[in-house]
Amino acid sequence: MSLLTVGTVAFDKIETPFGLAEKIVGGAATYAALSASYFTDNICLVAVVGDDFPQTVLQDMSKRGINLEGLQIRKGEKSFFWSGRYHTNMNDRDTLDTQLNVLADFNPILPQSYKNAQYVLLGNLTPSVQMKVIEQMVERPKLIALDTMNYWISSALDELKEVIKKIDMLIINDEEARLLSGEYSLVKAARVILKMGPRTLAIKKGEHGALLFQGDQIFFAPALPLAEVFDPTGAGDTFAGGMMGYLAKTRDTSFENIKAAIIYGSAMASFCVEKFGITRLTELKSAEISQRVQEFVHLVKFSV
Amino acid sequence: MSLLTVGTVAFDKIETPFGLAEKIVGGAATYAALSASYFTDNICLVAVVGDDFPQTVLQDMSKRGINLEGLQIRKGEKSFFWSGRYHTNMNDRDTLDTQLNVLADFNPILPQSYKNAQYVLLGNLTPSVQMKVIEQMVERPKLIALDTMNYWISSALDELKEVIKKIDMLIINDEEARLLSGEYSLVKAARVILKMGPRTLAIKKGEHGALLFQGDQIFFAPALPLAEVFDPTGAGDTFAGGMMGYLAKTRDTSFENIKAAIIYGSAMASFCVEKFGITRLTELKSAEISQRVQEFVHLVKFSV
Repeated sequence: MSLLTVGTVAFDKIETPFGLAEKIVGGAATYAALSASYFTDNICLVAVVGDDFPQTVLQDMSKRGINLEGLQIRKGEKSFFWSGRYHTNMNDRDTLDTQLNVLADFNPILPQSYKNAQYVLLGNLTPSVQMKVIEQMVERPKLIALDTMNYWISSALDELKEVIKKIDMLIINDEEARLLSGEYSLVKAARVILKMGPRTLAIKKGEHGALLFQGDQIFFAPALPLAEVFDPTGAGDTFAGGMMGYLAKTRDTSFENIKAAIIYGSAMASFCVEKFGITRLTELKSAEISQRVQEFVHLVKFSV
Repeated sequence: MSLLTVGTVAFDKIETPFGLAEKIVGGAATYAALSASYFTDNICLVAVVGDDFPQTVLQDMSKRGINLEGLQIRKGEKSFFWSGRYHTNMNDRDTLDTQLNVLADFNPILPQSYKNAQYVLLGNLTPSVQMKVIEQMVERPKLIALDTMNYWISSALDELKEVIKKIDMLIINDEEARLLSGEYSLVKAARVILKMGPRTLAIKKGEHGALLFQGDQIFFAPALPLAEVFDPTGAGDTFAGGMMGYLAKTRDTSFENIKAAIIYGSAMASFCVEKFGITRLTELKSAEISQRVQEFVHLVKFSV
């Protein structure tokens, strides 16, 4: 089944306690699409870049089954740029610079071949852009997932709530869940958010794993304890992309299968942080992924 | 099998965003012994209180199978007192006051009947006091577990390392593991700490669960996501007490059984935080514990 994803395809400058990466390829949709590409070769990318974005990266994405028909390349303009510095704990970061460039007036236009996608991942963008994507679909997708961030919760709450009403799954982090719901306890936050429309809520807690809520059911997916985390950039997008890729591959949106999908997403995220940028997501073997998933199985296995 | 536990039996004054509790019964050994009492009625308590400590609480402990022969009651003196205020996140707290009182010159003396205990939980106290307990045992216990804190790691590291050499399991939180090892990554911290002597390391992460390390094996026990946390005081001691109580009951110190024990400890901790102080630990039914443990089973259950 095809997976449509919209989001940023961009350049990042990243400082971590382990080093500095000047102008490397990043962007939520880049991470999500690459991660999903290990599960399905039917991925429709909707994004915008400037003509400064490297052709070689686009060719690699294309080879991995990522359809770039919906990628707008703006002549004479620059791609979105983000720069950040991570704290020692690798969970917190400061944004040092954001240059919207081509993203400032991004109008997502879906090619005809995208409009029947059954799985849709709306990456973190202005809620109105996310809405425009939904509006162009010719039939209701089987599952629409959406990511957002503190900035939109604070500055465009009404618009965001309108989009949230139309989706099946919201994927946010713990801070965002607290801000959106006004509740500190994530259990209470989930109750509030599930009333906003989505049937399912995934709360990402970084190195502390992820929580999945649907009705009264709760599932906890651990994060793999890692000796080295070189660069957490894109881990959340890799998680979402892996999860959606797995769902598109297995064509099963039951709670049980979403649990499995979250484990696959977590496994992909655990690879992502092992090297700077998208490096790990371009070199994985499927045997490595299976083995990593088994590590998750063993990590939480007990009998009482 | 008998479980010997040494630690504080004390008064606490606790401020949380949910309210204020003035001078309620607390102390690491109180929480640990009460928690363990749901698994075994053969618990040997070593502690010291003043004559201000309520007889009714001691009688209740005695009824629950907690042997108080090793509890020193000092006439005309005051019990240890701790006062703290929790932040909104309920994970961080500020200590507002500490009055050592009877604890200042505590010399643990083991009654003869305690000296063959097979399971020993050394609660957070001066390392020299913990060592004195070990030295009085007439035969090597099957499992010695030890809790400590930042204060001793910073102020009595050499003494602490001497005790750590003699134990089987160290139970500390993530910050303490980082301080003790000098490593930020908990996986690396565990490698360093396991070389200090203990075969097993449990790292408590509060609302984020606990990690268990032995050799190259890692187990992750989740914390139950709770709608309400009224008072986190004693949760770590309740965790350790429940775990040791379960081990003493089942007489099996294999890694597999320690995993089960950690789940039972986590279940006990999840009850502990539901009300102020020791309240929940005096009123639980065994059916509630079994049901709570099943919630942990379902929380992390998935199939891939």
